[in-house]
Amino acid sequence: MQFPQEHELQQAAERIAPYVRRTPLLFSAELNKVTGLDLRFKPENLQHCGAFKFRGACNAVFGLDEETAKRGVTTHSSGNHAAALALAAQMRGIDANIVMPDNAPEVKQRRVRNAGANIHHCVPTLQAREDGVARLVEDLGAHVVHPYDDERIICGQSTALREALQDDDVFNHVIAPVGGGGLLSGTALSLRADGRTARLWGAEPTGADDALRSLRAGHIIPSVKPDTIADGLLTSLGELTWPIIQHNVDDIYTVDDADIVRAMRLLWQYLNIIVEPSGAVSLAVALKQAEQLRSKRILIVISGGNVDLDTAFDLFRRYD
Amino acid sequence: MQFPQEHELQQAAERIAPYVRRTPLLFSAELNKVTGLDLRFKPENLQHCGAFKFRGACNAVFGLDEETAKRGVTTHSSGNHAAALALAAQMRGIDANIVMPDNAPEVKQRRVRNAGANIHHCVPTLQAREDGVARLVEDLGAHVVHPYDDERIICGQSTALREALQDDDVFNHVIAPVGGGGLLSGTALSLRADGRTARLWGAEPTGADDALRSLRAGHIIPSVKPDTIADGLLTSLGELTWPIIQHNVDDIYTVDDADIVRAMRLLWQYLNIIVEPSGAVSLAVALKQAEQLRSKRILIVISGGNVDLDTAFDLFRRYD
Repeated sequence: MQFPQEHELQQAAERIAPYVRRTPLLFSAELNKVTGLDLRFKPENLQHCGAFKFRGACNAVFGLDEETAKRGVTTHSSGNHAAALALAAQMRGIDANIVMPDNAPEVKQRRVRNAGANIHHCVPTLQAREDGVARLVEDLGAHVVHPYDDERIICGQSTALREALQDDDVFNHVIAPVGGGGLLSGTALSLRADGRTARLWGAEPTGADDALRSLRAGHIIPSVKPDTIADGLLTSLGELTWPIIQHNVDDIYTVDDADIVRAMRLLWQYLNIIVEPSGAVSLAVALKQAEQLRSKRILIVISGGNVDLDTAFDLFRRYD
Repeated sequence: MQFPQEHELQQAAERIAPYVRRTPLLFSAELNKVTGLDLRFKPENLQHCGAFKFRGACNAVFGLDEETAKRGVTTHSSGNHAAALALAAQMRGIDANIVMPDNAPEVKQRRVRNAGANIHHCVPTLQAREDGVARLVEDLGAHVVHPYDDERIICGQSTALREALQDDDVFNHVIAPVGGGGLLSGTALSLRADGRTARLWGAEPTGADDALRSLRAGHIIPSVKPDTIADGLLTSLGELTWPIIQHNVDDIYTVDDADIVRAMRLLWQYLNIIVEPSGAVSLAVALKQAEQLRSKRILIVISGGNVDLDTAFDLFRRYD
């Protein structure tokens, strides 16, 4: 199997550069002192739409030929991919039709609406979501953009680490969260294309540890009834993301919901940024594996920040 | 009276560049849609120590000659200047002795301690604070760095807007908060040195509107018993900051605490950043004066983000 090559990663970086925000590399001297670790953060919660997903969506949308683009794009998503695709489509001036389950968080529905997309509600089953997309393809000829199992998406997501590597060249360790694997596989490609020997870890909630189990088993083990507050990491690995992860990720570590909320609170307190539960999983892993990480410089990829504030306050209270 | 000149502003920018974070220029397409305004943000809550204060402190500390520096620095502060001076001193490897009133917020005391400074507690009166500093000067020969009424501080604070002007050259309007006036006067100097015709407004809490009253009266009217949740904006204008503001600021607008909390919540929700009450005052002014600002591009200077999370949650509940 042929993984995306350096020139494809570079093409993605150039294509999306006019549209994405180049997020800064952050650190807190105080958090480093408190944790005893040398942590750097790539805060994709500060990306447009509040998540790294906008990178992949831009790469897909701006890579379409005119003929395809004018029929618009579609996807099903309960989360950040929906808003990202909607905003990328709006920036290109084409339609976006998004199938969202009824129970999608209100904050995420609002972002889709405000980016000018049409929301098509469905019951929250994978079948209903896929049926919804199939109807939009048939009725409108809309082009489907999968949230992660798509080379254009993987290449788009790779640009976050690409920027971080340009900003700081002494990482010994990179930790990124894994749900469907778009961010982790893109991160892996950028890290290896750069020739770095840095170790790469995936970070996963204990209640949705299908990537860890897949890595141990040597084949994809789908996520069944995942149970975690990290609602961005519930999905299973894809056919394209899995082999990239299998060949390039050194290990995957899990953390439970209490660890995640503790890491979330540290990010809010010390970096003055709002991070959603899924976005705090990498830091939670670093804290849990601290002994292995002493005297290493660690890059923590923060995936997103789209959490309803009242929900976040409840989490802080519940896990205090 | 001779105001600091362009070459001094440039010298400050060069001196502190290796130490400060170049904060990004942020915007939210969604927030612009919701408010009907074209807003850009300079988020100094993402600065080291979580506030613009670090810029001025760095300029003062790294501008000291060796002889003076080795006796250390001192100041009295209940807030962000204390932590900023402590961190700047730590970066230069010199001592910092900070006089803090007993009632200084715990989050701000913690930042000072974690930057390796010595805290000297006193009762919360101006007299006790000044006596504390005088003793440290006598005992240690420590060098005093005033939080705002000092040209080195004003020039340091000017660098925030200087960066913003380099990142975007079409601002019609700049709004910055005013307490002692260090940030607003520095912002004014950078704006005028650049030859911009953009209008500059100061933003102030109704419960601490001494700058507005001073501007109307034509002379400094000190702040007496200020009453606002914006605890970074309680101080009076200084002898150095006042004339710069008087000659360069087009107007000052006030907002009440409910306006401030509403603006704070918008920043948290749409930009995924944590902003303290004082840091949200500029946006609150923009929202209140929205009619005047339609079709203008507005730069909102966010001063800092050091708010205790539980305090912030209480504010959100109280003003919901």
